[in-house]
Amino acid sequence: MDAVSVIRTKRDRGRLTDAQIDWVIDAYTRGEVADEQMSALAMAILLNGMDRAEIARWTAAMIDSGERMDFSVLPRPTADKHSTGGVGDKITLPLAPLVAACGASVPQLSGRGLGHTGGTLDKLESIPGWRALLSNDEMMRVLTDVGAVVCAAGDGLAPADKKLYALRDVTGTVEAIPLIASSIMSKKIAEGTGSLVLDVKVGTGAFMKSLEDARELASTMVGLGTDHGVKTVALLTDMSTPLGRTIGNALEVRESVEVLAGGGPADVVELTLALAREMLDAAGIEDADPAKALADGSAMDHWRRMIAAQGGDPDATLPVAREQHVINASETGVLTTLDAYAVGVASWRLGAGRARKEDPVQAGAGIELHAKPGDTVTAGQPLMTLHTDTPERFAYAIEALDGGVLVAPPGTSFEPQPIVHDRIA
Amino acid sequence: MDAVSVIRTKRDRGRLTDAQIDWVIDAYTRGEVADEQMSALAMAILLNGMDRAEIARWTAAMIDSGERMDFSVLPRPTADKHSTGGVGDKITLPLAPLVAACGASVPQLSGRGLGHTGGTLDKLESIPGWRALLSNDEMMRVLTDVGAVVCAAGDGLAPADKKLYALRDVTGTVEAIPLIASSIMSKKIAEGTGSLVLDVKVGTGAFMKSLEDARELASTMVGLGTDHGVKTVALLTDMSTPLGRTIGNALEVRESVEVLAGGGPADVVELTLALAREMLDAAGIEDADPAKALADGSAMDHWRRMIAAQGGDPDATLPVAREQHVINASETGVLTTLDAYAVGVASWRLGAGRARKEDPVQAGAGIELHAKPGDTVTAGQPLMTLHTDTPERFAYAIEALDGGVLVAPPGTSFEPQPIVHDRIA
Repeated sequence: MDAVSVIRTKRDRGRLTDAQIDWVIDAYTRGEVADEQMSALAMAILLNGMDRAEIARWTAAMIDSGERMDFSVLPRPTADKHSTGGVGDKITLPLAPLVAACGASVPQLSGRGLGHTGGTLDKLESIPGWRALLSNDEMMRVLTDVGAVVCAAGDGLAPADKKLYALRDVTGTVEAIPLIASSIMSKKIAEGTGSLVLDVKVGTGAFMKSLEDARELASTMVGLGTDHGVKTVALLTDMSTPLGRTIGNALEVRESVEVLAGGGPADVVELTLALAREMLDAAGIEDADPAKALADGSAMDHWRRMIAAQGGDPDATLPVAREQHVINASETGVLTTLDAYAVGVASWRLGAGRARKEDPVQAGAGIELHAKPGDTVTAGQPLMTLHTDTPERFAYAIEALDGGVLVAPPGTSFEPQPIVHDRIA
Repeated sequence: MDAVSVIRTKRDRGRLTDAQIDWVIDAYTRGEVADEQMSALAMAILLNGMDRAEIARWTAAMIDSGERMDFSVLPRPTADKHSTGGVGDKITLPLAPLVAACGASVPQLSGRGLGHTGGTLDKLESIPGWRALLSNDEMMRVLTDVGAVVCAAGDGLAPADKKLYALRDVTGTVEAIPLIASSIMSKKIAEGTGSLVLDVKVGTGAFMKSLEDARELASTMVGLGTDHGVKTVALLTDMSTPLGRTIGNALEVRESVEVLAGGGPADVVELTLALAREMLDAAGIEDADPAKALADGSAMDHWRRMIAAQGGDPDATLPVAREQHVINASETGVLTTLDAYAVGVASWRLGAGRARKEDPVQAGAGIELHAKPGDTVTAGQPLMTLHTDTPERFAYAIEALDGGVLVAPPGTSFEPQPIVHDRIA
């Protein structure tokens, strides 16, 4: 077996054999297959595809590259959620304690933001004292005591994926459905959850720009989960405009706490409840009422305990950026477009995200939206407030917003996008 | 400008701009673009192609990555030849002194063998004392004194190509027509020859398996040469079976000397004369008669002076492998197939070629053919003799020949392949 023959097979539109897949993933993890060989293979996979059996084997080989966890020792059924990443997507923050309050164990092994999409760990780290890095023992203790934990995935889970993901990021090979699906599912299956709800984003602010691509990714992942005995469901949800009214780390924590207090933006509440119901259903918990758990404070109670268990102070004042800049509507009319990608890039440039893995993020940076698509606005009315510690970045953020904010003449009809486009089980 | 955006452009079937090409070649040469990024780009180019303008710019950028030579100071017109590589392709050895004997300057900056195809420098290094590495001054002196030189290309010519070629070799991205064409032509144009004859091999033993692919590669290269003011002609020549009756380094030198002495196998003589006539025509030398120069000893005289000028002893006894193994015909009939690729791999495994750049080659290893396609053979008659210093390799060579040697029942009609399939100018 050698790397060139494996690359050639896929380059020439052939099927990779089980032996080729097992060998190349193992040899890459060990460093015998070089980065430049794996990136050529990744590009061939991106352009020529893999069939369902190849993707299943590729995923299994990545799982086998590392350790597996076991949540079956926990007293409650586990329910996990994964989002493919969006702008203003803070749903994990209210969702994990909410579903725990309804009786499931919710292990959320999360990542950091890269590019224009935010990362759950970056958001929670804006809470003074909160620690993302837990040992396996600590994680199991928080899960047992609180029912929900959000922490960094350990290095032991699917190390092949960790290496491959970093490679894909710098070689233009991120947007391959077989590689996205196997990357997500190898970690989730290795983690050992009993059920999984996938939030597959679709729209300008998501990796998947079309419903067709999102549906293919979703059904690929549902198939992988099901084949490995994980009850898996996917919702295709809208990412043409940001979720909620905040984008940025501390700003999104604040909005999440509003939701947990029974308030918050309607779209965030709707999606949080839709995902909570799917998770509880997948975990086999039938009589829970997540809307009630938001209303009666039990979700908030779980949030406070979850933050405190990881060293955070739920009552601490959240960081605020040093500088603000308000963008006003230049004309009167209907806000028809508030593009998720444009807003995501603007927030990223303000300091909420990072260009390289090793960059720091600004806890207070980001964007507050004062209007959402469909709203009627008046010339001079504030549309959004930009936040940053480094005011020289305002210009770059404003440049990113160019063309992403459109106001149509008064009376223009506006057809809102549904929050949930489709469900795949 | 960044590598990922360049990769994405080609991945998504776009045209690379001049600025993107200039930047990526320069940044790769300087090490700013990493190997894993260039290999992903190479795979995208292999699968999605480049148009003629992109290939021209890519070639120009590779030329600009290094120095250029100037042969216009030489007293005679320069005529260069390049073969895309085949099995038993020793043509450069008799051709260079022959064309010099007819009045042209013949600079042959050659390479070493890799994989199943042999390398001109490896062949000549089987002559005791002969040196492949010359300084530019030495090379110009041999060209002036003898009229022909065969030596290693200096590091200064198209360094981007040198780096990219090594990368393509280990990443399954060799077989891309735009990359093959630009690799060959960047070196030839940087070298500064006035005219160039391309011997584009087609058949099982060549990179190009089909006439259609070979024609595309040839016309791409002829276009590139013409655009850069180099008079360029291509012959598409057969590589379905080895050229001549020897494959291997010293074995091929011996056969080349036979041709220079006025003898040698008919196919080698025919191709040598066809290429010589094209080279002389391209160089504008009209009244030369290469067949006469072979017959009257003037080509041999130039060979002896060329070898001696680079430290070689033209009268030295050539190395002979320590062990021989004869393969006999297992039945009586017509030899219909003697597959170039199978024979090339067998010779390689006997030690005539190398698996990695840094491997040594055996001077005496290789294969002598006692029959050629179309010959009638009798059961028990020797078909070929395998030569090696390491007899444990016989079994691997015999395995490589499996299926590559076919004897059909007596009386089976056989249609020989022409040596020259087509000419593209």
